Amino acid sequence: MKSIDLNCDMGESFGRYKLGLDEEVIKTITSANVACGWHAGDPLVMNSTVAMAKENGVGLGAHPGYPDLLGFGRRNMDCTLEEIRNYVIYQIGALQAFCRAHEVKLQHVKPHGNLYLTMLENEDLAKSVAEAVASVDPQLICLTLAGAKNRNMTRACKALGLKIAYEAFPDRAYTVDGTLVSRRKPGAVIHDPLQAAERALRMARDNEVIAEDGTKISLEVNTLCVHGDTATAVDLVKKIHQELSADGLEVKPLGQIL
Amino acid sequence: MKSIDLNCDMGESFGRYKLGLDEEVIKTITSANVACGWHAGDPLVMNSTVAMAKENGVGLGAHPGYPDLLGFGRRNMDCTLEEIRNYVIYQIGALQAFCRAHEVKLQHVKPHGNLYLTMLENEDLAKSVAEAVASVDPQLICLTLAGAKNRNMTRACKALGLKIAYEAFPDRAYTVDGTLVSRRKPGAVIHDPLQAAERALRMARDNEVIAEDGTKISLEVNTLCVHGDTATAVDLVKKIHQELSADGLEVKPLGQIL
Amino acid sequence: MKSIDLNCDMGESFGRYKLGLDEEVIKTITSANVACGWHAGDPLVMNSTVAMAKENGVGLGAHPGYPDLLGFGRRNMDCTLEEIRNYVIYQIGALQAFCRAHEVKLQHVKPHGNLYLTMLENEDLAKSVAEAVASVDPQLICLTLAGAKNRNMTRACKALGLKIAYEAFPDRAYTVDGTLVSRRKPGAVIHDPLQAAERALRMARDNEVIAEDGTKISLEVNTLCVHGDTATAVDLVKKIHQELSADGLEVKPLGQIL
Amino acid sequence: MKSIDLNCDMGESFGRYKLGLDEEVIKTITSANVACGWHAGDPLVMNSTVAMAKENGVGLGAHPGYPDLLGFGRRNMDCTLEEIRNYVIYQIGALQAFCRAHEVKLQHVKPHGNLYLTMLENEDLAKSVAEAVASVDPQLICLTLAGAKNRNMTRACKALGLKIAYEAFPDRAYTVDGTLVSRRKPGAVIHDPLQAAERALRMARDNEVIAEDGTKISLEVNTLCVHGDTATAVDLVKKIHQELSADGLEVKPLGQIL
Repeated sequence: MKSIDLNCDMGESFGRYKLGLDEEVIKTITSANVACGWHAGDPLVMNSTVAMAKENGVGLGAHPGYPDLLGFGRRNMDCTLEEIRNYVIYQIGALQAFCRAHEVKLQHVKPHGNLYLTMLENEDLAKSVAEAVASVDPQLICLTLAGAKNRNMTRACKALGLKIAYEAFPDRAYTVDGTLVSRRKPGAVIHDPLQAAERALRMARDNEVIAEDGTKISLEVNTLCVHGDTATAVDLVKKIHQELSADGLEVKPLGQIL
Repeated sequence: MKSIDLNCDMGESFGRYKLGLDEEVIKTITSANVACGWHAGDPLVMNSTVAMAKENGVGLGAHPGYPDLLGFGRRNMDCTLEEIRNYVIYQIGALQAFCRAHEVKLQHVKPHGNLYLTMLENEDLAKSVAEAVASVDPQLICLTLAGAKNRNMTRACKALGLKIAYEAFPDRAYTVDGTLVSRRKPGAVIHDPLQAAERALRMARDNEVIAEDGTKISLEVNTLCVHGDTATAVDLVKKIHQELSADGLEVKPLGQIL
Repeated sequence: MKSIDLNCDMGESFGRYKLGLDEEVIKTITSANVACGWHAGDPLVMNSTVAMAKENGVGLGAHPGYPDLLGFGRRNMDCTLEEIRNYVIYQIGALQAFCRAHEVKLQHVKPHGNLYLTMLENEDLAKSVAEAVASVDPQLICLTLAGAKNRNMTRACKALGLKIAYEAFPDRAYTVDGTLVSRRKPGAVIHDPLQAAERALRMARDNEVIAEDGTKISLEVNTLCVHGDTATAVDLVKKIHQELSADGLEVKPLGQIL
Repeated sequence: MKSIDLNCDMGESFGRYKLGLDEEVIKTITSANVACGWHAGDPLVMNSTVAMAKENGVGLGAHPGYPDLLGFGRRNMDCTLEEIRNYVIYQIGALQAFCRAHEVKLQHVKPHGNLYLTMLENEDLAKSVAEAVASVDPQLICLTLAGAKNRNMTRACKALGLKIAYEAFPDRAYTVDGTLVSRRKPGAVIHDPLQAAERALRMARDNEVIAEDGTKISLEVNTLCVHGDTATAVDLVKKIHQELSADGLEVKPLGQIL
């Protein structure tokens, strides 16, 4: 029986600022990428997110980002490799402490925002991220993009003996070479829930996606990235989870798959 | 043979800002209280401080503070107990990740600045700090002030089965009831190195201190707090270390004493 | 004809974090207290808030707070008077630059959160705030609480020749000595819109409020503090504005009243 | 009689962190670029820097940077033009408030670090900076690099009617096309005080510089950028000031030259 994970960014609230319907979406996902207080999140939010994930049997991942709360970690910051390595170590450690306090194990690491994007493009940065992960805990799974752009991270993880998981986006259009269509292009985001759920199923079950030009391309997929920022998004996650289960796939945390 | 530890605040540099002669003082102390990026310190500094401590056989402690870099953690911030508990967990975790990356064990936790002072006065806060420490790692030693003011922290640590270490200040005058003379009073800080070294010896060897009025008072002392912010301060630490060794005391990290 | 101002905290969003229905409430208030990037707000939010206020003929006020985004400026921070004075100068200046860019004049200053509360209790702090305001622009109006607790600020402003405005809270219960009932007590917040609107009218028109024990107390009131954080709150502001206008009061910015 | 300004970055201390020998160098420069609390500086430092500048007859400039204290504003941050415009407005305003409090006029604006460098390369960014300056106060002088790289900023300032000042670096080698030799190349920084002072004189008096290959190139120079971070640097500034005066040049603030 094929297994698939559903991962979602969580714990992005900060102080009085609330972001995301975490209490809702946690019930239907299987892995949570938890912000670590740099681009989003704070210790109270981290604590309650870890508690919620534990209660719902959801796998926990660190979601490290740039030191840029004002830009939500989405702006490129020209950090040195040494900076990146230590920033990632710091953030993983902070989240691990909450995991220990709640007696759960940290499952994975997924870089956030522009750090994630840069890691795909820059081999040295990918290495630095992988080194940071391996230095803190070599059992941690590295989460990266399925498809053509994962070469840097795959190579970096293999060199260090780290497990790697590939994620696909059911609500995003793909180019014929297996990468995401830029958000600036029309049709980049798929809004129809039925279509998104169907794509999720094809990704999870068949390891393939239909590109924007109709070509069928294959993608190794271990986890689907879903969103919990709006009620519509949460409904889509439920729909996807139902479709996958109905088709006989086992939806469960990455740590139980890899 | 009596043993004593010498602890010193370290890793307080931040970005381009440099503070403290860490490279000098590390050679003569036995435990380092490492700032965790909130009131001071940053991931690069934490990383190099942990590396330096390991190289010099110095025990590592987390030195958590308030989220107030501008005030260096020295201003009171009226945080809730829940906030304090989670802030301390976060900061311990961040430092632990660097310890793991360097394959050393975190030895102790010593709150910084106003958090340290408030912990002495406020029983609930002392409990929250102790709970934070215990929840992350019950093997960690809690470092607090020797003398009359340690009751809250002692009680909180005992209730949770945590080890506790008491520190005294060789360069500070003491009141007759065993607390520090306020810095605002004349004579509160002892500038004469010979006198400070003599007091250090009396504290370490005899567990006692001569109060400002000449009374001899007893203090249970496991570690002496020393400073590395100036060349004079570093010289004093060397002097203290020499005197203690010359008198037959074993100067070594807390973790090897308690 | 009696005039009254309606003031509301605004511009509290930060980066990706959104707070308050500013676009709605701006249409019905007459003065905006704009967060200056310390406890809330950022330069983009300040810019668009100033633009919106200008477009709606709303008077602009600086709303300086502590350097504590994580605590939203609501936690006490034990700053020195020198710190407070310079923090307030800094924040007023930052907002004034946006006022100049939009060719409007800054009208008033209302400290935020715990800074506001501490200013009521601490005469030296009140003086420091007033000095900061006067040093940047002696034409600025200082906004403080109507009733028994305004003595410190009133004295400080008078000594410096600053105009002062008193605010009352239509949705808050008052003690018999003219101060707000603590939020922790039942009945402290008035949820019934009709009752709140009626209290607003009595405050604005008659300069009086019925205390929790039924006693009628007099309050010098120049402005009513209203809220825009929920749709219900915005509806209440509309209701209050209508009642005031229907009764013949002129609802207009502080700068046109004092 | 030819006039020349000596400008220096100042007010870069932050909280307990001290940077620069400001009290020394202020005595010999004529314009100060004051950090505005984003990449460096804080309100207390800004206040005392403005006071010191006033006392020494030194012209005051805002030195806005990225929101990156950890990176000292030296790392590229991929901000939008709208962000840059508002960040610059905010920081100018904050400093202007201290100028008003001390009854001096803000003289100029010089972007800091990577913002300065990006402004040279990116025409849109140069426009945004110039727009920000013009929107706050069209009398402010924009300070940029003398030589080939000033085209963007010159064009942007001219379009808005802003005065512009060109700075040269006496202690830096120049390429034959009039730009600075990269710091990574040997010989990029001139350490010999005599040579630097001689170059300063040639720049100020003759508007020319000898490039690394010996070619004489002309540079329009209104101000020389000097440093106050070490005792050696301060001595160099004194030497430069003496040489310029001895040669009959009038060393005075930009605002009295342009």
